[in-house]
Amino acid sequence: MPARVDAAILRQRIEALSIFGRSSGGTFADGVSRVAYSDADVAGRRYIIGLMRAAGLEPRIDQAGNIFGRRAGSDSSVPPILFGSHIDSVPSGGNFDGDLGSLAALGVIEALTAANLRTRHSLEMVVWAAEEGVAFNLGLGGSRIAAGDVKSSDMDQVWEGVTRADAIRKIGGDPDRITDAIRPRGAHHCYLELHIEQGGSLERQAIPIGVVEGIVAIDRHQVTVTGVANHAGTTPMAERQDALLAASHLTIAVRDVVASEPGRQVGTVGRIQVTPNAQNVIPGVVRLTIELRDLSPEKLKGLADRIRLRAADIARETKTSIEFTSSNHNTPANAALEVQRAIERSAGRLGLASQRMPSGAGHDAQMMARLSPMGMIFVPSVKGISHSPLELTSWEDCARGADALLGTVLEMDNA
Amino acid sequence: MPARVDAAILRQRIEALSIFGRSSGGTFADGVSRVAYSDADVAGRRYIIGLMRAAGLEPRIDQAGNIFGRRAGSDSSVPPILFGSHIDSVPSGGNFDGDLGSLAALGVIEALTAANLRTRHSLEMVVWAAEEGVAFNLGLGGSRIAAGDVKSSDMDQVWEGVTRADAIRKIGGDPDRITDAIRPRGAHHCYLELHIEQGGSLERQAIPIGVVEGIVAIDRHQVTVTGVANHAGTTPMAERQDALLAASHLTIAVRDVVASEPGRQVGTVGRIQVTPNAQNVIPGVVRLTIELRDLSPEKLKGLADRIRLRAADIARETKTSIEFTSSNHNTPANAALEVQRAIERSAGRLGLASQRMPSGAGHDAQMMARLSPMGMIFVPSVKGISHSPLELTSWEDCARGADALLGTVLEMDNA
Repeated sequence: MPARVDAAILRQRIEALSIFGRSSGGTFADGVSRVAYSDADVAGRRYIIGLMRAAGLEPRIDQAGNIFGRRAGSDSSVPPILFGSHIDSVPSGGNFDGDLGSLAALGVIEALTAANLRTRHSLEMVVWAAEEGVAFNLGLGGSRIAAGDVKSSDMDQVWEGVTRADAIRKIGGDPDRITDAIRPRGAHHCYLELHIEQGGSLERQAIPIGVVEGIVAIDRHQVTVTGVANHAGTTPMAERQDALLAASHLTIAVRDVVASEPGRQVGTVGRIQVTPNAQNVIPGVVRLTIELRDLSPEKLKGLADRIRLRAADIARETKTSIEFTSSNHNTPANAALEVQRAIERSAGRLGLASQRMPSGAGHDAQMMARLSPMGMIFVPSVKGISHSPLELTSWEDCARGADALLGTVLEMDNA
Repeated sequence: MPARVDAAILRQRIEALSIFGRSSGGTFADGVSRVAYSDADVAGRRYIIGLMRAAGLEPRIDQAGNIFGRRAGSDSSVPPILFGSHIDSVPSGGNFDGDLGSLAALGVIEALTAANLRTRHSLEMVVWAAEEGVAFNLGLGGSRIAAGDVKSSDMDQVWEGVTRADAIRKIGGDPDRITDAIRPRGAHHCYLELHIEQGGSLERQAIPIGVVEGIVAIDRHQVTVTGVANHAGTTPMAERQDALLAASHLTIAVRDVVASEPGRQVGTVGRIQVTPNAQNVIPGVVRLTIELRDLSPEKLKGLADRIRLRAADIARETKTSIEFTSSNHNTPANAALEVQRAIERSAGRLGLASQRMPSGAGHDAQMMARLSPMGMIFVPSVKGISHSPLELTSWEDCARGADALLGTVLEMDNA
């Protein structure tokens, strides 16, 4: 019988980890607030470091606060296979985002040890620091540093009165030598990550394993709609230059443009700020954000162009001006085809259906894609809910994902 | 030659009053911040009290802080004609809203004295306290009290750390005997007020005098749109329950419903609050306000009913719920027909065209309409701008309005 991850222990550990950051008197169902660098984060990290030590690993904390544990392979001339995830959460987050991938990585190493299986490549599990982008408003904090996106002066950033240097010191990092945490290109044979989907596609189609094709590109546009603030009682309807009316048309246009093409692209107006925002004043200025995501940057550009055209029409019709004040483009991170195939073979051996799909959310894996071939395994999220105490993946699907990760590690070890 | 208000002095006083509440280093064009009960308000009141005293009036401050000045008539058995306005402003307001009507009232009395004209009714000018509804979020503060809408415990209200009692004390009122400021029904022969239009109708039609038919009723609805907050990257377009998308459709529906009927009704979505309001999260909850104004409460009810029907459709189509959580209905205040006719005759004698129109804004006059026949004179606002440093009425139109007020006082004295 092939090696399997111990599903009961995986569940027990996910439940145990959920205690760190749980509200007092709460239960597992109340989710977790384990924001990066908080006391709860430190406690959760201590818990997982203890598990790693008990598993015979010698946990090492790099200068960024990322936790690594290595199991030596038979051939020291080849780079290690790296796999893991994170354990920090958003405020009022769930118990599976990151936790599953981190604890499954440990389970994979334990399963190989239990089966007395020696891989050719060394195996390195990782728990990345500060993935969620709450602290310092910066996502993928630890993996970003490992991928080289850091400079010493970044350590002076301040969030809630604390410098990034002090935050990193709190979790055992060494901000004075932060650039020593940078890993070179080719440092790994590949990077693998098991994660919950955070969307509802797998559950809806009853497919247990998602094979991530890549992590989408994100375009973010800041838009300012300028009308004329005026008295809501004395200004006739025909003479209004209502910035919120224009912004409402634009919000609908974003939806219509994005939904009008086939594909999995998404578009969101998530933030809106109205000035003066008084019930008896016609809105004079509205600032809003448009976020577009797709694997194809070209598609995003086409969508943005169509939205800009619609915005010009709306501005004319509403006698306002609509200005795209700044834009921010994230490149997509493609998963390596050989890793996608390895995941599919692994799922196939387990008798599990799989499906290729983009990741609409960002993950540490997109940083690791800069260094070596990358692949991600998704498991179903019940109702697609994430970043919420209601976030849920069945224990059966957790176990399937962990075994698929184990199989992929072995597939890649032979590749 | 009939008595006329001195236009040069009126202008000079409006300019002088603008100093109290002007930003340091500013000019007349920078407008004024003379919020009720502020030091600037106290200084402006002191200035106008000095002018009243110099005009031979004996200024009296009532328990609410309203300033009165009386010129005796020939028949002490008939009630006085009351006329005036206010001098408090919104933050970053203009130099004409209230100031014109207050200083023109003084000019009317001076003109009659200069012409040695004795009226039958005593004439009482008034500068109402706290009209703008900034302090204590309560509009028509002083006239509201005079109209009887007050109870002793209201004096305990707190705004910016100050009780209403202390605020009223600061301007010379007597909050411990606040109900003594209440005037009985029939206390006045009539109430007259000259005011800038604050809309653009008169200027657009080149009509110098507006005859207010009444002050509109206001319906305010608080609306909560509830969708599902979810990840903006992982939630497919077809599965979204986007509260902001629904709110956008509703904002447009308000405009469409209100503009679809003939008449002068207006409807505004002025305030909107989105939760969680993050660029990468689909909005879960939107709270917004719908304000409808018209002279006819029946029309407002019909508009609100049509908007609710549209809201139900929108909720169904967007898979959200739209709940009207609370509503607030102000009754309209009708101007007396006899006063409207007196204004028209007065304008006619001056060779000025006039037009009847509703007032979309609230005014102290609506409180006084509870006590006696009421009428208002509007003069053109350049571009309809108000509550802004850009608020402007030509000096010629100011003078025309003041003379129309004088003529109306004389017309009503004979009525």
